[in-house]
Amino acid sequence: MQISPGAMVTVRIIHHSVTGTTSRLAQAVLEGAAGIRGCRAEVLAIDGADIVNGKFENDAMLRSVDTADAVIFGCPTLMGGASAQFKAFADASSDRWAAQRWEGKLCAGFTVGSCASGDQLATLLYFTVLAAQHGMLWVGLNIPGGHDPQGRNRLGAQLGLIAQSTGTTVPTVDLDTASYFGARVAQKAMSLHGRSQA
Amino acid sequence: MQISPGAMVTVRIIHHSVTGTTSRLAQAVLEGAAGIRGCRAEVLAIDGADIVNGKFENDAMLRSVDTADAVIFGCPTLMGGASAQFKAFADASSDRWAAQRWEGKLCAGFTVGSCASGDQLATLLYFTVLAAQHGMLWVGLNIPGGHDPQGRNRLGAQLGLIAQSTGTTVPTVDLDTASYFGARVAQKAMSLHGRSQA
Amino acid sequence: MQISPGAMVTVRIIHHSVTGTTSRLAQAVLEGAAGIRGCRAEVLAIDGADIVNGKFENDAMLRSVDTADAVIFGCPTLMGGASAQFKAFADASSDRWAAQRWEGKLCAGFTVGSCASGDQLATLLYFTVLAAQHGMLWVGLNIPGGHDPQGRNRLGAQLGLIAQSTGTTVPTVDLDTASYFGARVAQKAMSLHGRSQA
Amino acid sequence: MQISPGAMVTVRIIHHSVTGTTSRLAQAVLEGAAGIRGCRAEVLAIDGADIVNGKFENDAMLRSVDTADAVIFGCPTLMGGASAQFKAFADASSDRWAAQRWEGKLCAGFTVGSCASGDQLATLLYFTVLAAQHGMLWVGLNIPGGHDPQGRNRLGAQLGLIAQSTGTTVPTVDLDTASYFGARVAQKAMSLHGRSQA
Repeated sequence: MQISPGAMVTVRIIHHSVTGTTSRLAQAVLEGAAGIRGCRAEVLAIDGADIVNGKFENDAMLRSVDTADAVIFGCPTLMGGASAQFKAFADASSDRWAAQRWEGKLCAGFTVGSCASGDQLATLLYFTVLAAQHGMLWVGLNIPGGHDPQGRNRLGAQLGLIAQSTGTTVPTVDLDTASYFGARVAQKAMSLHGRSQA
Repeated sequence: MQISPGAMVTVRIIHHSVTGTTSRLAQAVLEGAAGIRGCRAEVLAIDGADIVNGKFENDAMLRSVDTADAVIFGCPTLMGGASAQFKAFADASSDRWAAQRWEGKLCAGFTVGSCASGDQLATLLYFTVLAAQHGMLWVGLNIPGGHDPQGRNRLGAQLGLIAQSTGTTVPTVDLDTASYFGARVAQKAMSLHGRSQA
Repeated sequence: MQISPGAMVTVRIIHHSVTGTTSRLAQAVLEGAAGIRGCRAEVLAIDGADIVNGKFENDAMLRSVDTADAVIFGCPTLMGGASAQFKAFADASSDRWAAQRWEGKLCAGFTVGSCASGDQLATLLYFTVLAAQHGMLWVGLNIPGGHDPQGRNRLGAQLGLIAQSTGTTVPTVDLDTASYFGARVAQKAMSLHGRSQA
Repeated sequence: MQISPGAMVTVRIIHHSVTGTTSRLAQAVLEGAAGIRGCRAEVLAIDGADIVNGKFENDAMLRSVDTADAVIFGCPTLMGGASAQFKAFADASSDRWAAQRWEGKLCAGFTVGSCASGDQLATLLYFTVLAAQHGMLWVGLNIPGGHDPQGRNRLGAQLGLIAQSTGTTVPTVDLDTASYFGARVAQKAMSLHGRSQA
């Protein structure tokens, strides 16, 4: 999947938000990715109305992944795992799985909860398994917890981005981490698809 | 939560089935549990119609857990995790979580997939995290893989029951394992709640 | 495994500590468990010298689990999982696994890291899988994160106890959580083995 | 980490084997990787003697990862997780973690157990967390279980390679999967580092 020299790398951020905190993180990830020259980024939101009789039926969102070079998954950690709405999206990708339609894309993920630890890692582990089912490559965060002068990745996860909200507020440092993470994924997508940053 | 000498121990099996294989396993688990004197068991099925605008809204099913001594979760492993429909049920239990309403109950789980390994363990790990969030105790399978003369637990998982279907068929040995597992959970529920088997 | 009315319930805490923080938690867990009338508790420490040519060879420690009613595992989270020294202990339990020698015991676990989230959940997930292999029942923490007036379980995990150290210091609130957790495990062990607290 | 046109991509396979089955898989992975033009591959084996007083002390093996473009981890699944000896190697990489010395490398993994499912996924999940801590990218298997005409990936895992041994024998189809997997990792390493296959 070599991309021609002039072509842009496309990063799509597929997320589900309940209280708005995941959306705020998605926006920060977007800003980070969009700041990389040669990359265009887009945020898509899973909505309750996409789920009919328990099944995800928004085919346009699945098609948006088909045409992306990298995809970043995001949702809150609810009751110890990815939200059911996000899972409905994932379950709807089974035809693409059977055809390995998303093979070779780059994938990453982020999640948020109301506690510092609170099982957010379980959500990231799920994203990783999902990405692997699709033959996608997984990229995490390259900031070791407790080692960043700016305090990013304050919770110390690297499989992806873990944030902690207080009510509907996301700390600035978590948004900064999200922005950094978006840029990292975009850069890696460019490397993977044979583009060096201009 | 000592149960009075004459009282029955109640085991409820909450499951979601797509092709019918999970339902067949649920039925075998039920038979095993119901065969223990002093235990009554019941199967409940999550349905697409329970999920409205992405959210689980069958409060009767949640209430059925409130009054159970043990609960057994079951669903297929889809795209590397518990089905979205089961997850919708789990997400709807957050009020009970905040009140630790289900604390001290016994919990167990089973799943099925079309491959032998195929990420079914991820579903069981999720059930375990969910049970722990509710303060429930988790019980798995006490048959070491490859050591049973009758070949039960042929796939070798013990965190719960993992089955493998071929199309809509579940092998007899997996149903036998399910029946054994149901009996085990019922017996442990009786021990935990101060009842010895008559 | 009904325990005779006069008998004590025995809880053994098997742990590995590098910097002393896990040991401090183990001590707090011990105090909680020992405070339950009818329960006796003991801490055992895995040492580098127990591991010869990569294998754990302290059979007395394995035997101490044989005679316990409940066992609590503890170790630091290193490089995203249980410490190798703890894992060496676990690997050495394979004969007991084949015989399901530890079946029916109660099991719980705790871990500590230098970050708030930092993959400690992965260590608890491992403990859970190990306990299930042995046919043991798993009990977690029944304090929902962010809901305790005393602030216990500040990091919001319930699969077990997650603590965060700063250098060699463990916050008092984490030690208080550990003490509460030890008492909980002891009480559940008594219930499971047919003893009510005097 | 662009590699100059003439340079080779280096894949190192770091593994621990107890009965020889993991070594056989390592050899098959090696053959697959070495068959890719422009790639050189090497197998390194963790030995009991590398572990002194519970700690891994073979610095040459850690240095061999420093100079690799891709690294593939392998070990048996023992008692529900990566072998203690492999974990000792992982724990010894903490200095490299703090410096993110291995950032940007490609990483993959394989494991083997005596059962079809048997918690092998837990070992792959651990490898994934370890890779992420190091800022490495993770690549799995792009063969959907049950969909390959040659029957590869018969157990249906994609986070990495899961094999099942009978005694000391590894089925040919698992070795074929391993060889395919080695080639895939080598090709992805070349893409990631700006080399197209000659």
